[in-house]
Amino acid sequence: MISSLSNQQIKNLTLLLKKAKAREEQGLFVIEGPKMFEEAKEEKLLVKAYASESFFNEITSQNPQYFNHLDYEILTDTLFKEVSDTKTPQGIMGTVKWRKDSLEQILAIPNTCLLVLEDIRDPGNLGTMIRTAEGAGMTGIIMSSSCVDLYNPKVIRSTMGSVFRVPVYQAEDFIDTLYALKNKKIALFAAHLDGKPYDSEGSFIRDCAFIIGNEANGLTEEVSSMADFQIKIPMEGRVESLNAAVAAAILMYEAARQRRTGNLTENDIR
Amino acid sequence: MISSLSNQQIKNLTLLLKKAKAREEQGLFVIEGPKMFEEAKEEKLLVKAYASESFFNEITSQNPQYFNHLDYEILTDTLFKEVSDTKTPQGIMGTVKWRKDSLEQILAIPNTCLLVLEDIRDPGNLGTMIRTAEGAGMTGIIMSSSCVDLYNPKVIRSTMGSVFRVPVYQAEDFIDTLYALKNKKIALFAAHLDGKPYDSEGSFIRDCAFIIGNEANGLTEEVSSMADFQIKIPMEGRVESLNAAVAAAILMYEAARQRRTGNLTENDIR
Repeated sequence: MISSLSNQQIKNLTLLLKKAKAREEQGLFVIEGPKMFEEAKEEKLLVKAYASESFFNEITSQNPQYFNHLDYEILTDTLFKEVSDTKTPQGIMGTVKWRKDSLEQILAIPNTCLLVLEDIRDPGNLGTMIRTAEGAGMTGIIMSSSCVDLYNPKVIRSTMGSVFRVPVYQAEDFIDTLYALKNKKIALFAAHLDGKPYDSEGSFIRDCAFIIGNEANGLTEEVSSMADFQIKIPMEGRVESLNAAVAAAILMYEAARQRRTGNLTENDIR
Repeated sequence: MISSLSNQQIKNLTLLLKKAKAREEQGLFVIEGPKMFEEAKEEKLLVKAYASESFFNEITSQNPQYFNHLDYEILTDTLFKEVSDTKTPQGIMGTVKWRKDSLEQILAIPNTCLLVLEDIRDPGNLGTMIRTAEGAGMTGIIMSSSCVDLYNPKVIRSTMGSVFRVPVYQAEDFIDTLYALKNKKIALFAAHLDGKPYDSEGSFIRDCAFIIGNEANGLTEEVSSMADFQIKIPMEGRVESLNAAVAAAILMYEAARQRRTGNLTENDIR
C-alpha cells in the first residue's frame, strides 16, 4: 500500500492530473470515479488503476474479481484524498490512453455533422459540449489548439464518459483544417452575434459544421469570415449572448431534430 | 476608507455573500463586477456600493460623476480581495434589493411559457437557466424551495444580469403551485427519461410550462405524475442524460422557435 506523496508513481499521477504537457508526453490522462472507471475498462483504454484502501476493501468484498487482470495500486485513504482532483473523492482513479482521432477518420463517418471549437477556455463548457455532442449524434468535434486541454480533469469529468466515445480532432493548424472542411463541401455555420436566425439559413441535414467561438470574445474575424453562413440564436430581453455550451447545444439539437424528423425550418417549408 | 474585516459593514457584506438566511432576513443580495453594477443601478435596485480603492480612483478619473447620488464605501484593495467571492475581483460590489415576484404577477403575463425547477442544486446551472430563459423569452421561472438559493453569489454571476429582469417565483408549496398552473390550463411538460421525444408531443405555442428536475435524480414521482406530458430529449450513443441547463435550454428554445415561426413539430404537420 502506498502512503506517501513522494512515491514515484504518485508523483507521476499528480503530474498527469495537473500538467497538460505531461499528459501529452506520456499519451495518458487520469479519470476518477467508478462510472468513468467502468467505462474506461469496457473501452479497453485503462492502463493502471489506483484505489483507496476503503474503496478496495468494499468493492472486493462485493466482487472479489473486480481487479482481476488489472494493473493496480492501493493508496491509503489520506493519500488518495490528497491526490484526487475532486472535493469528495470516490476512491478510484485510473490512467487511460489518449485516443488520437485523425481528421480523415472523422470525415470518413457518413452524414457529417461537426462541432468546431475555437478557443473555448472553460473546462466545464468543453466537457458539457462533448457530452451533448454524443447525445445529439454529432459525427465529431474539432478543437483549435488554443482551447482548454481536452484531458484536463475537469473537462473529463464534465463529459460524463463521452470523451471515450466522441471522435475529437485537435487541430494543429485550425485555419488549414477549416479549408479541408470547405474542400469536402461541408457547409460551415458560424455562430455570430451579427448572423441571421439559425432557423432561417437553410437545412442542417446536409453535411455541415457549427463553429463556436471563445466564451467572452466569440469567433475571430478570420474564422467567421471563412464560414458559408453566419447564424445567431435570437435573444429576447437584454441578453447579449448565451453560455457557449448552451448555444452549441441548441444548434446541435436543431440539427438532430431535422435529421431525425426530416422536418426542416420555416425557410425550407415555404 | 475601510481596511478591516471587523468593520461592521464589512461583516454584514460577508454575511450577505455567505448566508442565504441573512439575505432573506435583510431582503438584500450582493452583486460583483462593473456590468452587474451598472445594470443594478439602471434597474434602481442598488442599495449601497462598495469599491476598491484602485477601482474608485480609476473610474472617477474617467467619470467624476460615477458615484454621485450613490451611497458608497471605499475599501483598501487588500480588504476588497478578502471579501470578494471571485478569484479575480473586479473592484466593485453592491448590495441590491430582492425582487419579490408573486405567482399572480407571473401568470398575468400573456402567452405563458414557464420554466419550473424542482430541486436544482448547482448554482452555475440555475444561473445559466435564468440567463437562457431571458434569451428565449420565457414569461417566468418557478423554483421549488429545495433549489439552491436564487441569491447565491455564483447563481447571480452566472445569470449575467438576467436575475434583474426574469420574473422568478420561489414556491413555498411546490405541489400547490403546480395545481394552480393546472387550474389555469397551462400544459405541463415534464422532462423525464421515460418520456416521448419532445418534438412529438404537440405544440409549445399554447400556454405551457417545462418542469426540470434535480441534476442527479431527475423529477420526483409525485411531480412527474402531475404533468400532462412526459417528454425526453432523444439521446444517441451511451449518453444517459444531458446537463440540466442544456436540457432546459433545448426545450425553451424549441418553444421560442415554434412561437416565432409558427412552425410546429412533426406531429402537428402530419
